[in-house]
Amino acid sequence: MVWFDGVVLVAELNVAVVGCGYWGPNLIRNFAESKLTRVKYVVDLIPERLAKLSRRYPGTQFVSDFDKVLEDRELDAVVIATPVHTHYQLAKQALLADKHVLVEKPMCLNSLECEELIALAAARKLVLMVDHTFVYNGAVRRIKSAIDAGALGDVLYFDSVRINLGLIQNDVNVIWDLAPHDLSIMDYLIGLEPTSVHASGVSLVANKQEEVAYLSLQFGSKFIANFHVSWLSPVKIRRILVGGTQKMVVYDDLEATEKVKIYDKGVDVSATGDEDRYKTLVEYRAGDMLAPAYDLTEALKVEVEHFADCILNKKSPLTSGESGLRVVKMLEAANASLRSGQPESLVKKAEVLLR
Amino acid sequence: MVWFDGVVLVAELNVAVVGCGYWGPNLIRNFAESKLTRVKYVVDLIPERLAKLSRRYPGTQFVSDFDKVLEDRELDAVVIATPVHTHYQLAKQALLADKHVLVEKPMCLNSLECEELIALAAARKLVLMVDHTFVYNGAVRRIKSAIDAGALGDVLYFDSVRINLGLIQNDVNVIWDLAPHDLSIMDYLIGLEPTSVHASGVSLVANKQEEVAYLSLQFGSKFIANFHVSWLSPVKIRRILVGGTQKMVVYDDLEATEKVKIYDKGVDVSATGDEDRYKTLVEYRAGDMLAPAYDLTEALKVEVEHFADCILNKKSPLTSGESGLRVVKMLEAANASLRSGQPESLVKKAEVLLR
Amino acid sequence: MVWFDGVVLVAELNVAVVGCGYWGPNLIRNFAESKLTRVKYVVDLIPERLAKLSRRYPGTQFVSDFDKVLEDRELDAVVIATPVHTHYQLAKQALLADKHVLVEKPMCLNSLECEELIALAAARKLVLMVDHTFVYNGAVRRIKSAIDAGALGDVLYFDSVRINLGLIQNDVNVIWDLAPHDLSIMDYLIGLEPTSVHASGVSLVANKQEEVAYLSLQFGSKFIANFHVSWLSPVKIRRILVGGTQKMVVYDDLEATEKVKIYDKGVDVSATGDEDRYKTLVEYRAGDMLAPAYDLTEALKVEVEHFADCILNKKSPLTSGESGLRVVKMLEAANASLRSGQPESLVKKAEVLLR
Amino acid sequence: MVWFDGVVLVAELNVAVVGCGYWGPNLIRNFAESKLTRVKYVVDLIPERLAKLSRRYPGTQFVSDFDKVLEDRELDAVVIATPVHTHYQLAKQALLADKHVLVEKPMCLNSLECEELIALAAARKLVLMVDHTFVYNGAVRRIKSAIDAGALGDVLYFDSVRINLGLIQNDVNVIWDLAPHDLSIMDYLIGLEPTSVHASGVSLVANKQEEVAYLSLQFGSKFIANFHVSWLSPVKIRRILVGGTQKMVVYDDLEATEKVKIYDKGVDVSATGDEDRYKTLVEYRAGDMLAPAYDLTEALKVEVEHFADCILNKKSPLTSGESGLRVVKMLEAANASLRSGQPESLVKKAEVLLR
Repeated sequence: MVWFDGVVLVAELNVAVVGCGYWGPNLIRNFAESKLTRVKYVVDLIPERLAKLSRRYPGTQFVSDFDKVLEDRELDAVVIATPVHTHYQLAKQALLADKHVLVEKPMCLNSLECEELIALAAARKLVLMVDHTFVYNGAVRRIKSAIDAGALGDVLYFDSVRINLGLIQNDVNVIWDLAPHDLSIMDYLIGLEPTSVHASGVSLVANKQEEVAYLSLQFGSKFIANFHVSWLSPVKIRRILVGGTQKMVVYDDLEATEKVKIYDKGVDVSATGDEDRYKTLVEYRAGDMLAPAYDLTEALKVEVEHFADCILNKKSPLTSGESGLRVVKMLEAANASLRSGQPESLVKKAEVLLR
Repeated sequence: MVWFDGVVLVAELNVAVVGCGYWGPNLIRNFAESKLTRVKYVVDLIPERLAKLSRRYPGTQFVSDFDKVLEDRELDAVVIATPVHTHYQLAKQALLADKHVLVEKPMCLNSLECEELIALAAARKLVLMVDHTFVYNGAVRRIKSAIDAGALGDVLYFDSVRINLGLIQNDVNVIWDLAPHDLSIMDYLIGLEPTSVHASGVSLVANKQEEVAYLSLQFGSKFIANFHVSWLSPVKIRRILVGGTQKMVVYDDLEATEKVKIYDKGVDVSATGDEDRYKTLVEYRAGDMLAPAYDLTEALKVEVEHFADCILNKKSPLTSGESGLRVVKMLEAANASLRSGQPESLVKKAEVLLR
Repeated sequence: MVWFDGVVLVAELNVAVVGCGYWGPNLIRNFAESKLTRVKYVVDLIPERLAKLSRRYPGTQFVSDFDKVLEDRELDAVVIATPVHTHYQLAKQALLADKHVLVEKPMCLNSLECEELIALAAARKLVLMVDHTFVYNGAVRRIKSAIDAGALGDVLYFDSVRINLGLIQNDVNVIWDLAPHDLSIMDYLIGLEPTSVHASGVSLVANKQEEVAYLSLQFGSKFIANFHVSWLSPVKIRRILVGGTQKMVVYDDLEATEKVKIYDKGVDVSATGDEDRYKTLVEYRAGDMLAPAYDLTEALKVEVEHFADCILNKKSPLTSGESGLRVVKMLEAANASLRSGQPESLVKKAEVLLR
Repeated sequence: MVWFDGVVLVAELNVAVVGCGYWGPNLIRNFAESKLTRVKYVVDLIPERLAKLSRRYPGTQFVSDFDKVLEDRELDAVVIATPVHTHYQLAKQALLADKHVLVEKPMCLNSLECEELIALAAARKLVLMVDHTFVYNGAVRRIKSAIDAGALGDVLYFDSVRINLGLIQNDVNVIWDLAPHDLSIMDYLIGLEPTSVHASGVSLVANKQEEVAYLSLQFGSKFIANFHVSWLSPVKIRRILVGGTQKMVVYDDLEATEKVKIYDKGVDVSATGDEDRYKTLVEYRAGDMLAPAYDLTEALKVEVEHFADCILNKKSPLTSGESGLRVVKMLEAANASLRSGQPESLVKKAEVLLR
């Protein structure tokens, strides 16, 4: 953006993308194609990666010195697509240099880091957004609109399976690698925070990172959420079930089309307090199934425009630092539960922090 | 069986089937069709049920008085297909009357009842068998033979999903209704006993039986088993994954054919204790997938002939009272975990009982 | 039915079912369960078949003498479920004895036989109905209502695949065995008669009945129908596609639920006569997909009640002798095409017959 | 290639790719990445297309003048990815300029053009290859090896379905657009030439190109092949069945993995000439199903290296001009049959040509 006397002269945001490994190139492409942004810098420590991409983006500077990039007064925002353990430090630097920040998921290694970044961004009135890409996916947004319209009735459960063979990560376990997708979808769709998390898992090599894991989230007595993530499944499954008292949704991300199916199926149970009558008041419904059309725009494109919109129009992002924090809290609790073998309370933690 | 002077004159076992509701007629049909058995009595308290079946089996007596049936010296065995809470009492009566017993799953309401029946049968040298039907299913036995032959390598996980819309039971929760199938399959295939069980679930009506539930079983550090059971799913799934270090199996019971698929897929990870080299020693394999032919005989037919064989030849049944006890212990622990919100140790319990 | 002075005293139709091989027992069960009919006789030449069924229906007479059955003045209708080559003779006898007739598909061995039976029934004011069971199937009727409501726009094509391994018939080829299902569904849904039929096929044994075959039906320039039938497929498929200018339908009979899917998909092509503009006027639509709920009543039950209703209320059956004739004409033409290798015109035939 | 005194100094073939619309960029990428070739020129008449690609290939000349390109003595081969009606003229020019040629499918607009190109290439000892990409696909080659090893027994039928919504072509009908894939797969796998072709189809707009079509190929009495191609299907299917007397293959190109399944299924029929015994000699087999691993290399990469190998080592290509001619003959016959409504003989044609 180019300012003159407090007025935006050119409404094109200058962006630096840090990290061009697996996901970075997708971010670069979408920021480059948006009319609201331009990729002024790409930063990476590995020269080969920079060289490989530089031919495709002749107007972009491919550099390795992040500090120097932050000195550019015309730079508006920093997009961080590096390994998780570097997120906190890089985001903090960017915020301190008064740059808006979009950071990969999971946001940080722990909730304290997240909270510090949130406070910093708030103090400096900067946009801090987390790249929970699926929230910007047309299929997920279509489910959200069904839930918000009350079509599902009371939502009873959220069940997610994201399993495949590979790609085993070295620095984090399968929960930190795969579950942020589903935790952020649940956070967006349901809008409830768990009271406790139980996790279990197994690893091929003793005392190493889990390659197969299960998360069970409690939310009081009326809703549960469960997650199965695996790098060691012979078949690939990416399926979410959301069950309500009125309708139920299946979201199968591996379908080429019709990824969302809304079933007018349910059970009507009326409890009268009388055991005998209870029995007779169960009724099943099985009506139409609808696979609604939904926006097919690439999720990352929607997300990039939303980030620009938040910066330009001082809006709060859908996947704010707070949503990043909520997901990291669940991941943190999952890891604690894996170590202890016990459910990890998220309520106690909140209470302790309040003192 | 007709005896004379300690010698079997007619090797056809006389059987009484108690309970002809949902499952009973299947047992009656298979016992009637076997050359080794004949259904001498069908016992039920509801006259309409008896009347409905009696025309089909003119050689069978349809009665309501179980005590009187037990007085028949020629009766060899009693098959119990009544609601769970009656299993213990009926099986005990039958054993005390010197009848062999085949009892529906789950075996009893708690492990103490199971243990008493096991002791009683042992003392009287009677066959006590539990109707874990899936253990006699050709597809499951084919998987067992692959595991026993070492084809899977070390087995790492067992994952089961058995979900559908309905039929909600009134007397037990969804775990006690559906999980015995999968727990008995796991018990048969893997042969390990869990050290602890964590369960979570949700019910449509507060403080009622859970209609959706998850079980997470721990077995030490090298193997885990997880179970998802539901009466409230918009889609029907009955799928088991068994993952080994060499091969992995998918058992999809809803496929019309090729229910078992054995994938020559895996990950070879060599740990050297050195973090950096660890990273480089991950290798993926993706070879052939084989859907082997398997015995298509009705599982219940195999089971009925096995029961007769155990009685006639004084063999120990594959799904003995002990296997019934192991499954009930897991169910018991699951219920305890549902109530406490904590994992329920099965090791401690064993130790307490040993004192 | 019992009449007194021209008035029906007892509105229960007396039915004789002839043939109790593969399909007969289903007819017997449905006629026995209907409140409008009772199975007074079951006729078969094989004593074992009669014996096997007789215990289940104590009120029915199981006999082998069809002539004698026809002498029964109280008998209202005859249901013929015997091999195809006997249909004509048995139906003719029944009609001459003033009995209403329901006959298995295909109706007869050739169209002349069909026409004779139609004329005979008309002359004696008797109901002559063909057992095109799928026409009474809830899924098929749901598609019919969508077509009749104009939801599909102009219907362009009907594509059917009905393939499996076995059961190879000895007396007819795979077209006569399997295609009547799909031809009768098309006849019911589309209501058009083909102008010509091309068929091709292959047989395992030279000069024997075809086990794999394809039918291609022409209807002028705006609609085509194609059929693939096979006893030699490694996979089982039973799927019909109906494509319209507005919507398109997939009917997958092997789905446990949601057998019918209506896609709001299409192509809008406007032709202006100008080649260059033609190119630019193609537009694709991809909206919602709806899997509508439909009546789950057993098709044969609906059919049996419709047959009784036609007799009692002097209605014309949905699957009349004329529909049976239309299907047999297509089968006849298919066989002629198989022999000649040329398309067989149905228009010429009609013209010849008109002279 | 750089020659000096009849000796190859640099074994890198210089290639010109003509046409960079839909498929051209894939060819360019593969020729650019191969160590045996380099893309010296890309030729297209539309400047925007050239501009779009030119940044990615800085070592390549993007030009519009094909004649001038052909004057380059160092150019070894021309790759033609332009609309079908230009293939013949461009290929002829290239051959006359002594360049080896790889041409898109379908090879030409008619068989006479194909034959002329074949004769021309033969006379000048140049490689003339047709881009029947699927022949170089690992899944298809795996099926070929099963057939060649005799695993299927006698092959009885080839059934192909390639249907989807769009993309409607303006210059050719759906047969010319989609069927060359399947015809070339059949030609490669089975190695038989049809004696006649029957085609039928329908078009949205009267007298326009067919959007839905069926091909039925005859080969004498022991084998048939059928093809269903459509631009107007609500669902996408790409599936080939190959049925043999011993085993049967399903090739589902839309599966992410396990695209090839080999079923040990079949029917053993022994004909004795005696009608009655014939009946009793039908036996069904249903053994294992194997989904074999296959080479996952991109087909076009394999093809590009094969083209280079043929040029460098004077080999005859797998998808030679002759295979292109065979496919065009079938397409030609299909169009003739569409117009006449009669099967088009390919035998008569051959005989006529022989005179």
